Amino acid sequence: MWKGNTVIDRLNIDYPIIQAGMAGGVTTSELASAVSNAGGLGNLGAGYMAPEAMVDTIKEIKRFTSRTFGVNVFVPQYPQATEEETAGANKWLEPYRAELRIEQEPTLKQDLSLFEKQIEVLMTEQVPVVSFTFGVPPREVIKDLKKEGRVVIGTATTVEEAIINEEHGMDMVVAQGSEAGGHRGTFSGAFDQAMIGTMSLVPQVVDHVKIPVIAAGGMMDGRGVRAALALGAQGAQLGTAFVTCRESGAKAQHKDAILNTKETDTVVTSVFSGKPARGIRNSFIEEMEKGDGHHLLAYPLQNMLTKEIRKEAASQNRPEYMSLWSGQSPRLSTSQSASSIVESIVTYVEREYEEAVGKKR
Amino acid sequence: MWKGNTVIDRLNIDYPIIQAGMAGGVTTSELASAVSNAGGLGNLGAGYMAPEAMVDTIKEIKRFTSRTFGVNVFVPQYPQATEEETAGANKWLEPYRAELRIEQEPTLKQDLSLFEKQIEVLMTEQVPVVSFTFGVPPREVIKDLKKEGRVVIGTATTVEEAIINEEHGMDMVVAQGSEAGGHRGTFSGAFDQAMIGTMSLVPQVVDHVKIPVIAAGGMMDGRGVRAALALGAQGAQLGTAFVTCRESGAKAQHKDAILNTKETDTVVTSVFSGKPARGIRNSFIEEMEKGDGHHLLAYPLQNMLTKEIRKEAASQNRPEYMSLWSGQSPRLSTSQSASSIVESIVTYVEREYEEAVGKKR
Repeated sequence: MWKGNTVIDRLNIDYPIIQAGMAGGVTTSELASAVSNAGGLGNLGAGYMAPEAMVDTIKEIKRFTSRTFGVNVFVPQYPQATEEETAGANKWLEPYRAELRIEQEPTLKQDLSLFEKQIEVLMTEQVPVVSFTFGVPPREVIKDLKKEGRVVIGTATTVEEAIINEEHGMDMVVAQGSEAGGHRGTFSGAFDQAMIGTMSLVPQVVDHVKIPVIAAGGMMDGRGVRAALALGAQGAQLGTAFVTCRESGAKAQHKDAILNTKETDTVVTSVFSGKPARGIRNSFIEEMEKGDGHHLLAYPLQNMLTKEIRKEAASQNRPEYMSLWSGQSPRLSTSQSASSIVESIVTYVEREYEEAVGKKR
Repeated sequence: MWKGNTVIDRLNIDYPIIQAGMAGGVTTSELASAVSNAGGLGNLGAGYMAPEAMVDTIKEIKRFTSRTFGVNVFVPQYPQATEEETAGANKWLEPYRAELRIEQEPTLKQDLSLFEKQIEVLMTEQVPVVSFTFGVPPREVIKDLKKEGRVVIGTATTVEEAIINEEHGMDMVVAQGSEAGGHRGTFSGAFDQAMIGTMSLVPQVVDHVKIPVIAAGGMMDGRGVRAALALGAQGAQLGTAFVTCRESGAKAQHKDAILNTKETDTVVTSVFSGKPARGIRNSFIEEMEKGDGHHLLAYPLQNMLTKEIRKEAASQNRPEYMSLWSGQSPRLSTSQSASSIVESIVTYVEREYEEAVGKKR
C-alpha cells in the first residue's frame, strides 16, 4: 500500500511519516535519527540555530543514522523597532522579568547573515532534505540546493501559498492546517484568513499544485496519517506527537502540559514571538493578550525579548510563563519512543487497508 | 467495505453519507429525498420552521422516498432584550433597512412552544431520525422519541459536548469541526475554544464516547468521507457540498457565491443571528463586525432582527447583505445533482480501498 507514493520514492524513506522540524531544542539528534531509522523522515528544526551548533547536530544525526534526514530553516525577516516601541514592549514584560529575577533587558541584535550561513552549512554538510518555514527563499538558494540532488520542501497555509511554493521550484509542499501546533507558516495574506482546517486545506491544495503535498495539523496517530493519505496528501507531518516522545528535547513541563491537556486548551497567540503560534493557554498568554497588539514587537524581535523569560520560567519550573506549543489533538499524545510512534502508525494504516477490503460487500 | 458500519446498520441506509439538516430553506423535500434515494440520509432542516410547514414538507419527503430520512431541530433558548438593547441593535441595522427600502422594524416575538410543537410533529409524522443542534433536549423528549424506535442524533463541537450527548441518551453524535459552514453547534463552554479542526476533533471524540460518531466540517467529496472513516467516524455529514447542488433550495446568489469563492474567504461571525456561524465574508459582515458585540442581540433575537434584511437582499440581488453560509472547502463545490454527489463519493471510496490494497508491497 506504500507503492507509488511519491514522497517515499523521492526521499528514499520507507513510510511517508515526517517528523516536523520544530525549532527551540525539541528536535534533538536522537529524535531526528530515531524517526529516520524507523523509516520516516527525521528533521532538525534549525530555525534559531547558530551555524556551529547546526554543524555539530547534523554530524551527530549522520553518526546515528544512515537514512535520509532533513533540516528546517526559517526564511528571515528583518523588522525594525524604534526605541519607543521597544521600551513599550519591554514594559509589558517587566513583571515577568521581576518575578523570575531577570535583571537585564535583552539587546535586540539580528544576525543579518544567519540565513546565508545556515544555507552554507546545509550545502557543506550534504543535508539531503531542506525545508523552509515563513516563506520562500530567493530562487538562487533553491536552485543551488537542488543542484546536488537535495530535496527542497516549502510550507503553505493556503492554496495561494502552495502555488507560490511550486512556482519557486519547491519539490514538495507541506499544507499546514489550523490544527497545527507552534508557529503558523503563513507568509502571504492575513494570518486570520489562513486558519484553514486540515480536512479542508489538503484536498484544495492537492487540486491546485502538481508537486506532492504533505499534510500537517492535527495528526497524531495512524488514523490521522491514513486520513491525510485519503485526502490526497502523499505524506503526513507530525509535530506535537513527537514533542512528548522519549527522544524529544522538549522541557519536561512542556511534555507534561501536552500530556495533560484538552483539545479546547490551546490558543493561537503572537505574544511570545510576534508571530501567531498555537500553544497551551497559560497566564503569560492570558495577561499579554490584554494588550492591543501594539505592545508586541514584530517577529523575531518579540521572540528575542521573551527568550530569557521562557528559559528562566523552564528552569524555575514556572510553566505558566513558558511557550507550550501544541496542536489541537493533545488528548492523543503519548510518551512512547519515536520509533514506536512510527511503527504503530504503520501497523494501523496497513491493517486498516486490509480490514477495509475484507469488509467490502 | 461498508459492512459492519454501525451508522449504516442503525439507520438502514446504504452509505454513511449524511446531508446536513441546514435550516433556512436549503433542505427542500427534493434535496432530502434525493439523498435518501441515493442511499444516504437526507435531512430536513426544520430549525426555524412552523409546525404546519414541517408537516407539509415531511409528507412530501415521504411521497418522494420510501427510504430513511431525518429532521433536524434546534434546542431552543429564550433570551431577553431590553427596549434599549433592541433599539441599539436596530440602530446598527438601519442603514441596511434604508438601503433595501424596508420600512418597518420587526417585532421580536418568540413562540415559546415552537420546539414542543415541532417534537409533536416528529412524533405524529413518524419521522425515523431526529437530530438536534444547539444543545441536548430534556431527557423525556429523547426518551419519548426513542420509544418508537426513532434514532436520535446530537451535535458536539468538543469532546465534553459529545460526552454530554451520550449521557443524555443520544444514539449517535455529530462531531462538528471548525471547518463547518453555518452555525456552530457549541452549547457548553466558550465558542472560541470550541473551534477544533475536524482532523483533531473526530479521533478525540471517538476515543471518549461509545456511540457512533459522525464527522462534520470540511468534507465535500470522496476524499473527505474516506478521511472521516479513517479517523474512526462511522459516517460523514456534508452541508456545503449539498447547498450548491441542483435540488438545494439555496438562493441563486448563495450558490454562486460558494461556487466562486476561495478557502480564505469565509469567516465565523455572530452578526446575522447572534450566534457564531461560518459564511462568506461580505460588506454586511465587515461593517457589522466593527461593533463591539454589544450592538448585537442574543440568538435568536438577532436572527429575527436581520431576517427581513436577508430576505430583501436576496430578492433585490444584493448578496453583500445576505448570509452566505459556507464551510472552508468552497473550492471543492460543484453544481451536480444530489444523487451524483452521493454516487461519486461512493465510487471514490470503494475505488480508493481497492487501489490501496493493490499497492500493498
